[in-house]
Amino acid sequence: MASNSFGNLFKITTFGESHGIALGVVIDGCPALLPITEKEIQYELDLRAPGRNTYTTPRKEKDRAEIVSGVFEGKTTGAPITILVYNKDADSSKYEAIKTLLRPGHANYTYLEKYGIFDYRGGGRSSARETVARVAAGAVAKKFLTHYKIYPVAYVKALGGILGEAPTGTHKQISKKIYSSPIFCGDESQAKKMMKAIEKAKEEGDSLGAIIECRVLDLPMGLGDPVYEKLEANLAKAMLTLPATKGIEFGEGFHAANLKGSEHNDLFVKRNNKIKTSTNNSGGTLGGISNGMPLVFRVAFKPTSSIKLPMKTVDIKGKSKTFSLPEGSRHDPCVAIRAVPIIEAMTALVLSDAILMNRCVKI
Amino acid sequence: MASNSFGNLFKITTFGESHGIALGVVIDGCPALLPITEKEIQYELDLRAPGRNTYTTPRKEKDRAEIVSGVFEGKTTGAPITILVYNKDADSSKYEAIKTLLRPGHANYTYLEKYGIFDYRGGGRSSARETVARVAAGAVAKKFLTHYKIYPVAYVKALGGILGEAPTGTHKQISKKIYSSPIFCGDESQAKKMMKAIEKAKEEGDSLGAIIECRVLDLPMGLGDPVYEKLEANLAKAMLTLPATKGIEFGEGFHAANLKGSEHNDLFVKRNNKIKTSTNNSGGTLGGISNGMPLVFRVAFKPTSSIKLPMKTVDIKGKSKTFSLPEGSRHDPCVAIRAVPIIEAMTALVLSDAILMNRCVKI
Amino acid sequence: MASNSFGNLFKITTFGESHGIALGVVIDGCPALLPITEKEIQYELDLRAPGRNTYTTPRKEKDRAEIVSGVFEGKTTGAPITILVYNKDADSSKYEAIKTLLRPGHANYTYLEKYGIFDYRGGGRSSARETVARVAAGAVAKKFLTHYKIYPVAYVKALGGILGEAPTGTHKQISKKIYSSPIFCGDESQAKKMMKAIEKAKEEGDSLGAIIECRVLDLPMGLGDPVYEKLEANLAKAMLTLPATKGIEFGEGFHAANLKGSEHNDLFVKRNNKIKTSTNNSGGTLGGISNGMPLVFRVAFKPTSSIKLPMKTVDIKGKSKTFSLPEGSRHDPCVAIRAVPIIEAMTALVLSDAILMNRCVKI
Amino acid sequence: MASNSFGNLFKITTFGESHGIALGVVIDGCPALLPITEKEIQYELDLRAPGRNTYTTPRKEKDRAEIVSGVFEGKTTGAPITILVYNKDADSSKYEAIKTLLRPGHANYTYLEKYGIFDYRGGGRSSARETVARVAAGAVAKKFLTHYKIYPVAYVKALGGILGEAPTGTHKQISKKIYSSPIFCGDESQAKKMMKAIEKAKEEGDSLGAIIECRVLDLPMGLGDPVYEKLEANLAKAMLTLPATKGIEFGEGFHAANLKGSEHNDLFVKRNNKIKTSTNNSGGTLGGISNGMPLVFRVAFKPTSSIKLPMKTVDIKGKSKTFSLPEGSRHDPCVAIRAVPIIEAMTALVLSDAILMNRCVKI
Repeated sequence: MASNSFGNLFKITTFGESHGIALGVVIDGCPALLPITEKEIQYELDLRAPGRNTYTTPRKEKDRAEIVSGVFEGKTTGAPITILVYNKDADSSKYEAIKTLLRPGHANYTYLEKYGIFDYRGGGRSSARETVARVAAGAVAKKFLTHYKIYPVAYVKALGGILGEAPTGTHKQISKKIYSSPIFCGDESQAKKMMKAIEKAKEEGDSLGAIIECRVLDLPMGLGDPVYEKLEANLAKAMLTLPATKGIEFGEGFHAANLKGSEHNDLFVKRNNKIKTSTNNSGGTLGGISNGMPLVFRVAFKPTSSIKLPMKTVDIKGKSKTFSLPEGSRHDPCVAIRAVPIIEAMTALVLSDAILMNRCVKI
Repeated sequence: MASNSFGNLFKITTFGESHGIALGVVIDGCPALLPITEKEIQYELDLRAPGRNTYTTPRKEKDRAEIVSGVFEGKTTGAPITILVYNKDADSSKYEAIKTLLRPGHANYTYLEKYGIFDYRGGGRSSARETVARVAAGAVAKKFLTHYKIYPVAYVKALGGILGEAPTGTHKQISKKIYSSPIFCGDESQAKKMMKAIEKAKEEGDSLGAIIECRVLDLPMGLGDPVYEKLEANLAKAMLTLPATKGIEFGEGFHAANLKGSEHNDLFVKRNNKIKTSTNNSGGTLGGISNGMPLVFRVAFKPTSSIKLPMKTVDIKGKSKTFSLPEGSRHDPCVAIRAVPIIEAMTALVLSDAILMNRCVKI
Repeated sequence: MASNSFGNLFKITTFGESHGIALGVVIDGCPALLPITEKEIQYELDLRAPGRNTYTTPRKEKDRAEIVSGVFEGKTTGAPITILVYNKDADSSKYEAIKTLLRPGHANYTYLEKYGIFDYRGGGRSSARETVARVAAGAVAKKFLTHYKIYPVAYVKALGGILGEAPTGTHKQISKKIYSSPIFCGDESQAKKMMKAIEKAKEEGDSLGAIIECRVLDLPMGLGDPVYEKLEANLAKAMLTLPATKGIEFGEGFHAANLKGSEHNDLFVKRNNKIKTSTNNSGGTLGGISNGMPLVFRVAFKPTSSIKLPMKTVDIKGKSKTFSLPEGSRHDPCVAIRAVPIIEAMTALVLSDAILMNRCVKI
Repeated sequence: MASNSFGNLFKITTFGESHGIALGVVIDGCPALLPITEKEIQYELDLRAPGRNTYTTPRKEKDRAEIVSGVFEGKTTGAPITILVYNKDADSSKYEAIKTLLRPGHANYTYLEKYGIFDYRGGGRSSARETVARVAAGAVAKKFLTHYKIYPVAYVKALGGILGEAPTGTHKQISKKIYSSPIFCGDESQAKKMMKAIEKAKEEGDSLGAIIECRVLDLPMGLGDPVYEKLEANLAKAMLTLPATKGIEFGEGFHAANLKGSEHNDLFVKRNNKIKTSTNNSGGTLGGISNGMPLVFRVAFKPTSSIKLPMKTVDIKGKSKTFSLPEGSRHDPCVAIRAVPIIEAMTALVLSDAILMNRCVKI
């Protein structure tokens, strides 16, 4: 089953394994005449890169984006855009020792059962490393969105049970706050507590979960298509394809289930000569279509499955074993942090697709 | 943009408006030789039907499923299966008076902006009535799943802030508990409180939200495809295409964000000669593929947007108005209740699709 | 496998069996605000109708198009458009006697082997009657194309080995010539010979093949997408999905294989301030994209498989039998004639799709 | 518009420009556990390679297939398989001089009009060089087909108006005859005449067209899906996506239009305890589904558009010019010859897809 593509018109296909030769993406359907450079793509990859600081994995790999096709004299041509990121210095030897063990929270068991074969080196295709290809593609989508003045921003909303305030201001101000935080959290004082919690979890050989919020402030009306291509539906799918995600909610989300209609309904008002709603409990959509209010959603991430603490498990024959991370393994105490630019990327891809789809709705 | 289809191989296309001639569905890709009758489809439609009791809308319409194609001598032939449900006695006249008003929580504004035209009668294509087509299709999918001994069961988990216990037992026992409850809630004592809350909301002209949980007890391993056709991703998309949904979570869901890795990781054990996990925090999947544990997810529904209380709004020109439901309007105080069979239907469609996709993964 | 849909953005899904309740089509992706009436659809169905004269099947059925969804106050709304054509007076009893015989040139054998079940009544889903749904959908597509001043015209180019001249003039003049001919052939004198050949074949209980040519005179540049959505590729697929088709060729087609490059290359010239080619050997495309010259292609139809002459065959167990058409069977001596409006319909669908796709190629 | 993918379940996406960094393909949906090596892919690339002899272009490029993902320990894993072919020594400088000229028979004009930008170096994405990616993918598909004992064989059937006999025997014998011919023509004596014609065309600075026939001897029954995924329809689409193709026909093809039903109908007989047809005028399908007889079709290729003879043309502003191939240009006098392995590749892709689709038709 062809299952490595995402999107309808602005469509990506990703490929590559964690410890293979390279990861990459083919973007098919990006409109022609969009100026794009490797530098712009690299900028996004660097945001996602591990080893930015002590709060993410200390791996020192430097991912380099290489545009292989689809760009001519600095502009897209309408041809498929291929971006490659070569894997460097991947040391797969340490995976040999654990290749027959079922790793708690990991996909090696289900992949092996499904396919009868598993590239266990670094998690192969199931590795979160696949997301490097999404971020590269997202960089192109983000550039496309600038032509519509659309800027998705994501940030850590909660981490290890510590809740932060959403940053306010323009998208530029929000981005600045987020990207200047070592853990992509715009709430400085709460971020300090979160960082302490991470340090503690690290010491204990444990890991933490988090909630990432994403906002798109100036989303125009009309994006999203009824009935099965609703904007939320495609965003939900996009986010739940990310490793370690356990849920998504829009606007008031699960809390909406506790409200009354008279509390939850956003009332229409005229503001600055535009029709808006007085509140934004819906999170920016009505009937699956953007309504001109900010898009708001949150994604729940489980704590990193790879922890230093030993865990009970079985091997592929069902024999009891203890799983310990191989010596020298480097892992994130909280994978959700690095998910921030990835969520921006996936949001950009969904919105770019919605923009193209929206070109076809009227004669 | 073609946006009225769902699924890859077991694929549905729905059509029809709330107050049009009929609603319907074409199921394309249902395997041949499946025995199916109109009676089996009708059974599911009746579960979804409004007017079962005081806790749902009192409309007395009786939806009748008619198989128009694809079934010969009681069995599917591999040809597209079309099921029609004719609309009866739809009185559209009362919508005339409110057709220029923006309805809070409704899609008429965004549809009108997007398409430049809107079939306002009963909400047209944006109406929850579209789900009758999904339930009809879901009945066929459920029948298909019985060949794999797969039975999705959904139920009210929380309503108006009142939490219920998930029913336990076999899928048959669970179903019996759920379907014998007027509000599809298997927890009898909590259900009573929920019903009181509904009665109160009704009296106040208000509405309530709810959380529906869905379980699939005996789901075999291997369903779901990496990377962009993960089982959770397709379920998330399926659920977020439903009207009034605001979020979805799997296993521990948003709560997982508060846990440590050592708490959340499900450990592998051998039980009855099968490899299982000792806990099921993940909700039945690993790496997007079912792992042999029960599938568990929850869907958040906002309170019904249509309430009897008058609401401030504007008309399409932005002029301030008050919106009141037309006399004689009949609406659900809690739409989520009727969503129970719909969620089962959508789950059945996703799983049927996953089963077919899973036939193609090995040489 | 979902295999009853055609098109990417302007997408149809057809359903129904020859002797079932109804045939129909769901058009998903037709832009909103297109004025369309049942009368306009009926006009096209009437062109396809059998029994227009002695040269086609004498069946007197009258197909009636009914719009079930997607049109509101005379215009499309962006919602899926469903059109139903109910089957009337289908007498399936005579198929009982021949249901175990393999019919030469028919699909009952392959369907039965593939699916293990076959709706043998009138050929079920394999019947050419399915094309009534295409013509209904094509009527909507044709209407859409009028907004771009695009008018596909098809006609009999050769029949029973008798070659006709292609009609010349504007699309209106061509259409008039074609539709005033009982056999859709614009070459009056050759049409007479063709009609004689049909009468003779009929007397002999035999049937004839034909070649249908299609032209689109004022096709704008830029339709068709490289590499796998070339205009010719999608037209070729469209035509080869039609029953009884055995080939397609564009421009000089198979004859081009006998030419030299210096003979075949169309040279660019400036004419009326537009860049055109001096010849049109390519048939209106370059690199899969329309080049502003008339689109020209031809489709080969085999002679009708159902003939009155008895044929040797076997039954499903392989036992030798003689196949004779049941008494009172009414069949076309040349199915290709009725294919003329069907080819126009399929062409209109491909072009409508290409127009929408072409909206997404530039930023 | 995403238009660089082909196939439903066994799906390819190709990318890369003629003079870009590399060409490549992502194969998504190839089942796991298929043994495949770079050597096997290289074997097919070498067949397609130019410069095999005097009858094809003398370019000495040596294309090297590199597997970048999807293969682990010599077997496919179910992950997307990426194959790269780097471009070497591409000299784009000579294209500078002709970049504003409309090349007769080429796509530079239509691409430029459609996209507003064109990578003119070597034809960019419109170059026949894109087919190297198809052949690489086709090598994987061919390997997959060996598990079903399916072997497509293609050969030159006619060239420059000279007709050859189709080679007979087993697929191995046929392959041997074809691949030992410098022009992939199994009819030795006619091949000599064809080669003389090529030499003459070369001397004259001209080019020739050809017809390639493809046969699949042992195709099992049941491949192909009604109504819009008929085997012929998908083959027709596949072939018409190839550069320089002008038509396709199945079995008796266009000649069938001259036959009577009594002549054309293939009669069913029992042979070696199997149901077959006494003739194979249909070319191996009935109702779009393979019927157990050999699949037979022919593809028409126009003469190479690039010829040494100067041609009249205009530049992009419409000014009259003469087009001459740049000094040192190396071009095929008959591109159709090198299409032989490409047609085998495309056939293998269509059949692999049909095999997977056929796994989903019964419960």
